[in-house]
Amino acid sequence: MLNHWFTQIESMYEQMVEWRRHLHQYPELSFQEVETPKMIAGILESYGIEVKTQVGGRGVVGTIRGAKPGKTIALRADFDALPIPDEKEVPYKSKVPGVMHACGHDGHTATLLAVAKVLSENRDKLAGNVVLLHQHAEELNPGGAIGMIEDGCLDGVDVVFGTHLTSQAPTGTYLYAKGYAMAAADAFEIVVQGKGGHGASPHETVDAVAIGAQLVGQLQYIVSRQINPQKAAVLSVGSFHAGNAGNVIADSAVLKGTVRSFDENVREHMQREVTNIVNGISQGLHADCQLKYESGYPAVFNHAEETDAFLEALKTFTDENQLIEMTPIMGSEDFSYYLRERPGMFFFTGARNEDTGAHYPHHHPRFDFDEQAMVHAAKALTALVYHYAVEKETKPVPEPAV
Amino acid sequence: MLNHWFTQIESMYEQMVEWRRHLHQYPELSFQEVETPKMIAGILESYGIEVKTQVGGRGVVGTIRGAKPGKTIALRADFDALPIPDEKEVPYKSKVPGVMHACGHDGHTATLLAVAKVLSENRDKLAGNVVLLHQHAEELNPGGAIGMIEDGCLDGVDVVFGTHLTSQAPTGTYLYAKGYAMAAADAFEIVVQGKGGHGASPHETVDAVAIGAQLVGQLQYIVSRQINPQKAAVLSVGSFHAGNAGNVIADSAVLKGTVRSFDENVREHMQREVTNIVNGISQGLHADCQLKYESGYPAVFNHAEETDAFLEALKTFTDENQLIEMTPIMGSEDFSYYLRERPGMFFFTGARNEDTGAHYPHHHPRFDFDEQAMVHAAKALTALVYHYAVEKETKPVPEPAV
Amino acid sequence: MLNHWFTQIESMYEQMVEWRRHLHQYPELSFQEVETPKMIAGILESYGIEVKTQVGGRGVVGTIRGAKPGKTIALRADFDALPIPDEKEVPYKSKVPGVMHACGHDGHTATLLAVAKVLSENRDKLAGNVVLLHQHAEELNPGGAIGMIEDGCLDGVDVVFGTHLTSQAPTGTYLYAKGYAMAAADAFEIVVQGKGGHGASPHETVDAVAIGAQLVGQLQYIVSRQINPQKAAVLSVGSFHAGNAGNVIADSAVLKGTVRSFDENVREHMQREVTNIVNGISQGLHADCQLKYESGYPAVFNHAEETDAFLEALKTFTDENQLIEMTPIMGSEDFSYYLRERPGMFFFTGARNEDTGAHYPHHHPRFDFDEQAMVHAAKALTALVYHYAVEKETKPVPEPAV
Amino acid sequence: MLNHWFTQIESMYEQMVEWRRHLHQYPELSFQEVETPKMIAGILESYGIEVKTQVGGRGVVGTIRGAKPGKTIALRADFDALPIPDEKEVPYKSKVPGVMHACGHDGHTATLLAVAKVLSENRDKLAGNVVLLHQHAEELNPGGAIGMIEDGCLDGVDVVFGTHLTSQAPTGTYLYAKGYAMAAADAFEIVVQGKGGHGASPHETVDAVAIGAQLVGQLQYIVSRQINPQKAAVLSVGSFHAGNAGNVIADSAVLKGTVRSFDENVREHMQREVTNIVNGISQGLHADCQLKYESGYPAVFNHAEETDAFLEALKTFTDENQLIEMTPIMGSEDFSYYLRERPGMFFFTGARNEDTGAHYPHHHPRFDFDEQAMVHAAKALTALVYHYAVEKETKPVPEPAV
Repeated sequence: MLNHWFTQIESMYEQMVEWRRHLHQYPELSFQEVETPKMIAGILESYGIEVKTQVGGRGVVGTIRGAKPGKTIALRADFDALPIPDEKEVPYKSKVPGVMHACGHDGHTATLLAVAKVLSENRDKLAGNVVLLHQHAEELNPGGAIGMIEDGCLDGVDVVFGTHLTSQAPTGTYLYAKGYAMAAADAFEIVVQGKGGHGASPHETVDAVAIGAQLVGQLQYIVSRQINPQKAAVLSVGSFHAGNAGNVIADSAVLKGTVRSFDENVREHMQREVTNIVNGISQGLHADCQLKYESGYPAVFNHAEETDAFLEALKTFTDENQLIEMTPIMGSEDFSYYLRERPGMFFFTGARNEDTGAHYPHHHPRFDFDEQAMVHAAKALTALVYHYAVEKETKPVPEPAV
Repeated sequence: MLNHWFTQIESMYEQMVEWRRHLHQYPELSFQEVETPKMIAGILESYGIEVKTQVGGRGVVGTIRGAKPGKTIALRADFDALPIPDEKEVPYKSKVPGVMHACGHDGHTATLLAVAKVLSENRDKLAGNVVLLHQHAEELNPGGAIGMIEDGCLDGVDVVFGTHLTSQAPTGTYLYAKGYAMAAADAFEIVVQGKGGHGASPHETVDAVAIGAQLVGQLQYIVSRQINPQKAAVLSVGSFHAGNAGNVIADSAVLKGTVRSFDENVREHMQREVTNIVNGISQGLHADCQLKYESGYPAVFNHAEETDAFLEALKTFTDENQLIEMTPIMGSEDFSYYLRERPGMFFFTGARNEDTGAHYPHHHPRFDFDEQAMVHAAKALTALVYHYAVEKETKPVPEPAV
Repeated sequence: MLNHWFTQIESMYEQMVEWRRHLHQYPELSFQEVETPKMIAGILESYGIEVKTQVGGRGVVGTIRGAKPGKTIALRADFDALPIPDEKEVPYKSKVPGVMHACGHDGHTATLLAVAKVLSENRDKLAGNVVLLHQHAEELNPGGAIGMIEDGCLDGVDVVFGTHLTSQAPTGTYLYAKGYAMAAADAFEIVVQGKGGHGASPHETVDAVAIGAQLVGQLQYIVSRQINPQKAAVLSVGSFHAGNAGNVIADSAVLKGTVRSFDENVREHMQREVTNIVNGISQGLHADCQLKYESGYPAVFNHAEETDAFLEALKTFTDENQLIEMTPIMGSEDFSYYLRERPGMFFFTGARNEDTGAHYPHHHPRFDFDEQAMVHAAKALTALVYHYAVEKETKPVPEPAV
Repeated sequence: MLNHWFTQIESMYEQMVEWRRHLHQYPELSFQEVETPKMIAGILESYGIEVKTQVGGRGVVGTIRGAKPGKTIALRADFDALPIPDEKEVPYKSKVPGVMHACGHDGHTATLLAVAKVLSENRDKLAGNVVLLHQHAEELNPGGAIGMIEDGCLDGVDVVFGTHLTSQAPTGTYLYAKGYAMAAADAFEIVVQGKGGHGASPHETVDAVAIGAQLVGQLQYIVSRQINPQKAAVLSVGSFHAGNAGNVIADSAVLKGTVRSFDENVREHMQREVTNIVNGISQGLHADCQLKYESGYPAVFNHAEETDAFLEALKTFTDENQLIEMTPIMGSEDFSYYLRERPGMFFFTGARNEDTGAHYPHHHPRFDFDEQAMVHAAKALTALVYHYAVEKETKPVPEPAV
């Protein structure tokens, strides 16, 4: 039966491309999405799917109720774009200056719409329900997932899955990690307020460059001395700006940085130590150092059982070269919030195609993905539903009484 | 007789103001002076003074030959302006946008012109010659003094004096230092060329912020460990710029700083150590750190005998509250080059007047000086000439035996 | 049949205790073992086992040849002691002042002797051979394993296993890791040769304390900036000694440290960066810093297939609470050399018993282990032999048709 | 008349040598002097000089009252020895093991005794009094001067002078400084209490070596950034001791250092900043850093008028090669306490003689001085008394009218 579903998905390829290209031309920024959710809702409704809009803000949730009772499987696709100018030369180039689908969320949306159509047409085969999570604002902290969850989008959901297209792996592959898949990414800004003055009179100043340099040095100790060496942790000061002239002592310095981790204890520990060090330097060297620490998304942690389910489901139609275990990546995703609430799993679907120029990194002004990858993503999601809502239910089919 | 000269100077006050205000309205940048030297030469020639122009570039040298043989005393006034917009509201405000006499060199020029007139009218009383050094380009390294010296402006000169008006001391005062009066000021720029990359992947980068911070830290050792604690030395990193975002590791950092010293050995030592440290950090941390070290003017060192002469000359018409010994200042002056070639001395003439708004620091867009101070400066220079070319010669004149 | 073997092992408990206690009373230091290998060889020979002595120095290798052809399985036990005074109060306390079996190698030896006896008595059941690697000098770099390997102890060997008793896990448990199990541990010493002098005249010195402090600071960058955050790496400076008095600048400083890693590339990278930093500091700050970098044992890497074999073998007689997956530990072992040459695996056998005082950490003067743990260790080794040399061969035996 | 006094001093040379050599053989440590003050008091009393003993502990104060009224001039000589073994081979070598007059205080004492004899024999010529301050315990903080002052030794004193023999300048010279002559010397000890642990588990420790290194780095900022570059200041960490092994993270570190300054504001500022930095590091890096800051003697500051008096007095019998202006030295002296209470001045008397081996630095086990220097020192002190108590009084004697 899964093969039949796959055929249906393949037949929707042109439609997916059309949807995706439309979205690509009219990208909308995080928390500012208006037309995108309207379009999604319209399409879902046209398939007779039960739709809720403005979930947690601008999210759209569709529910496909299966004919038989069973598990409820949520599938998530995000739909926001980025404040990046589109520099590709393609017919479907963004028509909104400075805004672009530079991360493939248009593809995620088209994929899930196609999956929705196929599943809604097969709801009589389904034991259980499928919840379609069309999420706004993945790109911008605090993200759309939190709001949708608070608004009940996971109510009744048993497992949750999501995928991300990636231009960093060839079309046809799937990448997954056991346990941690993506990092928690937090950001900080430290403003060192010293006291400026003539470069020849340091004693009348509080030298913000010198103090900023001390801070950078001490912040290294967090990773080198304070975190378990067997747990991944990064703290990088990405920018340091202070002063206007060589012969004038700077009165302030602004340092910005990023902190990455997986383990939540490590994450909290790092925030605590950054705070300590900033306070210690303030006290020791007379500066007034202000720390802004912005928590980003937590780490994406794939649950063991659902990862096994994913592997089992995908092995039914892939060979081993296609299914690749990856080391966790240091980027972050607000899919993590769903996984804090429900068992589930997040994987990547290869979408690289050198021939069509789909090889730029995500968030690059020339980013594009191989549209054929949408078919692969849709098959994986469908196979997961099949695994939970068809296969599992049918497997234990009672032997006919003799 | 000196009193008579002083009366003549006082009577020139209006003239000095006129000259000064003219120059103030038409300031010319260092090494770009055209009209200023032309005006100076014209005035000097109008007094029948022997004039050489384009000395060492744009300098003007006048020579007043005394009636009797004696010492040759050089007096110096600089005449260039600064790339600073004039923000004062005065009738004589600069008419050149973005250019301003923000350091009082217009006053120096007017002062020396008045002295020239008085002395040229009294050349029959002079035993010796007076050389008038109207110097261009004091504000911009390498300065005009070097060129004028190379062009022979000190040929035949025995002693050299100069003064600087200062808004930091009240009109009527004179400030002097024994030995070192002003510092050597050198500048440096270090470009740390690392290798940028994602904030989560420091191992694929050479982190320019982290390395720049190390540099700032090590540069502190020069003053704290490598220089004789009884010799003044300063090294300040005034600006540090690296990176554009907190989550991207910066590929380069630019550090700019200033180095101040008096003793020439200390000065050379500091340059050597900055170079060493930059090379050591480059080697140790894989960065390509490029150092540009720009030597500014050497320290102004007042010679003992000429400082005594100055004190003796000024004590004839000042009281002790007016003649103030100061600690050396960390600013610099290319008058130091004259003092490397000839004995001499450099002093400051108070020109602060709170009532007229003449209290802003030098190089400030609202800088002004008390024009009355030009009279004081002119008297001091005249008194020095009197000391060398009149007093000394006449004092010991043996009375003819009867 | 394995059960029968286990019964035999259990019946040897008293013998193991006797052997172990004898060794415990007469411990011998690494590379100085004389009586221990003699005793081992004697016992093995008494069982009719083929014995080679002085293998790679002081090692003893026994070979039990099975009745049928098959794989050759090597089992390793180390037998050296430590320069630590025995502070336990037990009847079998060390009789050698300052030398003690403080790591349980006496237990390893007794265990393997018992296994040898049981297997030699069952050689008719064995398809394949068992090589008994009684190794000297595990505690002292470069370790005995290298020499024994060079001397041919692995010739003909197909797989190699070893175990270590641990007071850090309760008797009855087994701890294992997939992939890396133990770290590579390297050591370094940096001698900073500066130039001493009076504390008030830093400019006449090269301050070894200040330079040593810079070194400690820069060495932090290796872990915080230069190593992949997803790979474990530690660099610790454990000791820093410089100077005799507060008011005299130290002429030299001695820093000692340890470097731990798993990945061999990381390991090499760290050595390279320590070298670079030491050279950079030397150049930048005029010190002559000498680095001695002593490579210790590489990381112990358990091979996947053999780890699976271990799990399969142990699951036949343990429940899941006994078989514990552990995170790799940062200590090191020269068993790693065997695993570079042959597939194999190293695991830990719990030997903690709070009641008998067997809970002190290894290398502690009161270290002891629960002697009952030797039975568990012996069973595990026996089960591995059974897995390779009996089970596998016998499994596919077709069941006779009924 | 001074010449006559000088002749008397010269005639006492043998006596001075005898006294000095006796003291040299029986040196007594600071605050433990018993026989030395007894000997001094006995000699002074034998000259009919009024003597007070146990002044401020172990000091001896003699008073010579002049025949006429006038100023009271105090002359100070210290008499304690050092805990240094005498390694010279001379007949007058120390007979007390481990104790030695390694700084010349024996010579100071003999000198002042000779001066006392000469002046006491000439008290009829004196207008004013001479107070002889034989001081104990100069070498050991808090020094003997404080106690003697509290005990009234300066009561009635108008000016105070002292000299120190120095093996660092040839016999026959006198060295003096205007203003600051010797530095304030303070000491500190910082105990960094961290938390030890295994070198592979930094996250379970608070690394005292790493934190101590941060401290050393930050302490550099005091001199490089916080003190006026035109004021001398030194902070040196002379010793750093932490840890016993490279692979064990040290639980504590002990740093000892010295702080030198002249200006009392600078001195206080430095103590404040050391305290701040230690507190800041404690807070920022979780260590418990304990600071002990021991204030030593303040800077010796020569008063202007008394320095002029010294120059005037010495110029009467020296030529300009003998009277040398020196830069202040960074060593310290508790003579500073007298100069806080009374106008006065401290100078050095050259006592170097390469031929007799008198060239080792002070506090060296082979230190010695040229005994002839005692004559020079005595002449200088006598000349000062002459200047104040004879010359000044007699000078204005009105010439008898002709």
